[in-house]
Amino acid sequence: MTAGAFITFEGGEGAGKSLQVRRLAEWLRARGMDVLATREPGGCPASEAVRGLLVDGTHTWSPAGEAFLHCAARAEHVRTAIAPALAAGTWVVSDRFADSTVAYQGYGHALDTSFLRQASGHATGGTGPHLTLVLDVPPDVGLTRTRARGEENPYETLPMAFHERVRAGFLEIAAAEPDRCRVIDARADAETVHRHVVAAVNDRFGLSH
Amino acid sequence: MTAGAFITFEGGEGAGKSLQVRRLAEWLRARGMDVLATREPGGCPASEAVRGLLVDGTHTWSPAGEAFLHCAARAEHVRTAIAPALAAGTWVVSDRFADSTVAYQGYGHALDTSFLRQASGHATGGTGPHLTLVLDVPPDVGLTRTRARGEENPYETLPMAFHERVRAGFLEIAAAEPDRCRVIDARADAETVHRHVVAAVNDRFGLSH
Repeated sequence: MTAGAFITFEGGEGAGKSLQVRRLAEWLRARGMDVLATREPGGCPASEAVRGLLVDGTHTWSPAGEAFLHCAARAEHVRTAIAPALAAGTWVVSDRFADSTVAYQGYGHALDTSFLRQASGHATGGTGPHLTLVLDVPPDVGLTRTRARGEENPYETLPMAFHERVRAGFLEIAAAEPDRCRVIDARADAETVHRHVVAAVNDRFGLSH
Repeated sequence: MTAGAFITFEGGEGAGKSLQVRRLAEWLRARGMDVLATREPGGCPASEAVRGLLVDGTHTWSPAGEAFLHCAARAEHVRTAIAPALAAGTWVVSDRFADSTVAYQGYGHALDTSFLRQASGHATGGTGPHLTLVLDVPPDVGLTRTRARGEENPYETLPMAFHERVRAGFLEIAAAEPDRCRVIDARADAETVHRHVVAAVNDRFGLSH
């Protein structure tokens, strides 16, 4: 059995990641692939419980506390969902993964990015994406979208400068790993973004259009 | 205002830590000290919520997941409870702290101890105990005690070899930092252990008997 491929979507608030995960999962399934569409934090019961702590608004977390909760969730997500799926030949498409911790808690909140990468490495045991699609959108555009959707989001109350640092972080991550990462302009409509996603997946994995 | 002192109790299952924390807190209060008696994981609402995830039995956690949850809880415990108490001149006495992560997830579960120390350092921002009392008891003795108390404990089902590694870990930690750590034979009755605790506190901080 061939191991599956692991694709992550990354980007700031309102970049359209969750819609593009669904669109790509449908596209892959239509081509006969088994697909696990998942998300971080979350993706398995233990990690969804951690997500609850992060987003339900009962408690506030320091940047370090947030980073460790994300790593705890990632450890269980990889161990119980992603790694078994890949081993079974399933394609895994995740809405966020380790780059988000580096971008948000590192670039955004000024924690040590090399420590955050090391921590994620301990969480994942080396399982990482073959392809990462960074959906890039100016923060004011993205936040306007999420507010229009009425979403609860603990990051939305942070200043625009935070979101600018997160955006710059994703672009630096992508620039440092050009073989793994592709930046897609996510200001466009969802159909256009999906076409760029499919083009990047075809280019990376050589699938038929 | 003089900053308070920070004392931690460490040791394996059934060493008598929580009782000795209470006894020491009473002893310090009787000498006029403000005392915060606390515990890990926990000690503040956010960290008690993380404790719930670790101990309520709904989910199972990998060693890495456990370690990150402990670090997340520690970050909030230090930030919201321990550091403010110390700054206000309060003595802080904690049932477990960073050494437990090194002993359990490092020595016990074979995670990288130097990474675990580094992670705890990111969680605490450098706030650490002035005195650590390692209550040492053979695992079979300790586990017999906890079973007699009917306590729920996710570590109790692990093999005796795990508990032996944890015990050896605490002893190695204490041997490596003799200025900070005192090992107390916790096979003795609670009153005898308390007398040794008080002697160690007097010796370290020069309080009156």
